[in-house]
Amino acid sequence: MNVIIDAFGGDNAPDALIQGLVWALETREDFNVILIGEETLLNSKLNKYKYDNKRIKIVNAREIITNNESPVEAIRIKKDSSIVVGLKLLNTSSDSDVFVSAGSTGAVLAGAVLLLKRLEGVSRPALAPVLPTVNGSSAILIDCGANSECKPEMLLQFGKMGSAYAKAIFGIKNPRLALLSNGVEAKKGTELIREAHKLFQVDENINFCGNVEARDILCGNYEVIVADGFSGNIALKACEGTALMMFSLIKKGIEKGGIRAKFGYLLLKPVLKKIKHTLDYNNQGGAVLLGLKKLVIKAHGSCEADAFKATILQAVSLNELKVTERISLELTGFSV
Amino acid sequence: MNVIIDAFGGDNAPDALIQGLVWALETREDFNVILIGEETLLNSKLNKYKYDNKRIKIVNAREIITNNESPVEAIRIKKDSSIVVGLKLLNTSSDSDVFVSAGSTGAVLAGAVLLLKRLEGVSRPALAPVLPTVNGSSAILIDCGANSECKPEMLLQFGKMGSAYAKAIFGIKNPRLALLSNGVEAKKGTELIREAHKLFQVDENINFCGNVEARDILCGNYEVIVADGFSGNIALKACEGTALMMFSLIKKGIEKGGIRAKFGYLLLKPVLKKIKHTLDYNNQGGAVLLGLKKLVIKAHGSCEADAFKATILQAVSLNELKVTERISLELTGFSV
Repeated sequence: MNVIIDAFGGDNAPDALIQGLVWALETREDFNVILIGEETLLNSKLNKYKYDNKRIKIVNAREIITNNESPVEAIRIKKDSSIVVGLKLLNTSSDSDVFVSAGSTGAVLAGAVLLLKRLEGVSRPALAPVLPTVNGSSAILIDCGANSECKPEMLLQFGKMGSAYAKAIFGIKNPRLALLSNGVEAKKGTELIREAHKLFQVDENINFCGNVEARDILCGNYEVIVADGFSGNIALKACEGTALMMFSLIKKGIEKGGIRAKFGYLLLKPVLKKIKHTLDYNNQGGAVLLGLKKLVIKAHGSCEADAFKATILQAVSLNELKVTERISLELTGFSV
Repeated sequence: MNVIIDAFGGDNAPDALIQGLVWALETREDFNVILIGEETLLNSKLNKYKYDNKRIKIVNAREIITNNESPVEAIRIKKDSSIVVGLKLLNTSSDSDVFVSAGSTGAVLAGAVLLLKRLEGVSRPALAPVLPTVNGSSAILIDCGANSECKPEMLLQFGKMGSAYAKAIFGIKNPRLALLSNGVEAKKGTELIREAHKLFQVDENINFCGNVEARDILCGNYEVIVADGFSGNIALKACEGTALMMFSLIKKGIEKGGIRAKFGYLLLKPVLKKIKHTLDYNNQGGAVLLGLKKLVIKAHGSCEADAFKATILQAVSLNELKVTERISLELTGFSV
């Protein structure tokens, strides 16, 4: 199989990406890579590494879409950008199933929606990152920003796609699913959420456990949390911001706390480092866009080499787990 | 002035509440209290404390509204509940300006909307907690759950009320205001947010700084963050849940980390305790419902005595700062 990679996506591309790629190639031998970007530059960067050059093919793309551009417009205009070239190749290639990019989230989403085919029964694809939870398990939050405006039926589809994804990546049979709302009662929430709640309640193919408040997203009681893309994005980023704030407060406190605090920090460092590692959702790989015939993985824009390595290996593994096929079966009612 | 207090709201009422009340009475001498609840029980509890009994008046109310009841129905049926009796008294009393309750959020909100008069120009009141930020300043998040469904004009009103509130409690002239969305660009968000963005942009009476992502709510760059009640609630609770998760992970890590980690914790304890204190928004008092002719403060349901004390003193102080009058002037364009 081939993983198609946007070599110019993210703040640290292409250097950190190439380092991560070489590490990923060293870790597993059963995949090849198509690297999309400015060929001469990529070749000169790759020349610094030792790797099996039969495993990397470069496809030239001379443009880059930045975060400051209107995503839809950029996809339409920049035909020679790494995102557009990569997605078009993914759409037509018979031996490539995954595209990885750390570039503009809006452009990756817009490009995927415009250039790739949807699975049967899917009205809109959804972005589904995997979050760490307090008890060490993981939870899928779907949708996290692909669809700001949703309909109840879309949320039900997100739930089914999330369930199939949870079954595949967590290896469980009956993932617990909850609907993000501002209260656990069925009457709570916007009209969208209340209508979606009713659809979930009568669907026998999913293990619906009711509404969940944002306070309990990370509690570990649910494997799938369904949200409209706007609320899911708010929830995800509020969690991220709070975790960053706490680390910043700890750092400031240690700096101001004199020798006592500094010595305490040295002793407690392994514990704090482990927590940072747990909470850093880069370590869980990128967020996968579910609902298309091919997989698209959006890595965090500030990805470092190790996160790129993790995301590339995630791409190989998701392909192996036949995530797309499983979602397709779930949506047509033939799930295993 | 009188503060009217729901003596039977919250998980720890009435015991923690009475302790907090006695502490508050000891701290300031320039206010009195009307305590709403079962008279005989309250008298027997109060008898254990020394306090100036001229400062507390008890008004009997024999019913309690629980979290498990439908708020609107409970307000209509339980006429003798501490929330209904307290709010009705607030509405008619000439020397009482604030009602404090740690009871069911839904019931307090529904009761306030049904039983109190709105300020001129306000279509719906909004809940506005004060959050800590990473640089030690505070930010008002409005609305946090009073209105799940909003219109753009409502968000503009929330912005004006939040600005007036920020001027009053932070003592600043030109509070920076941002609109919660899933991206900083004006085009981002739901239709509601995009339309509200346009209204904010052309209003010269507020210091609109654009959209803010949930990641940056706690960054300290804005004094007022405007959200529809559903998203605001998601953001608030996601922040709260993440902070709780991190403390839980630190605790677990220390328990498992052997003597080294335990000793490190002892040394770092003052730093961690201070962070816990900073992040605990109970220390900032309760969330104020803005937009009514009288103030209603919703304390956290799990309030302990010190949080009750803080909330009662907050009530006195908000009355002193003439928050209601200032909001009224802001809404009619005569703000100072």
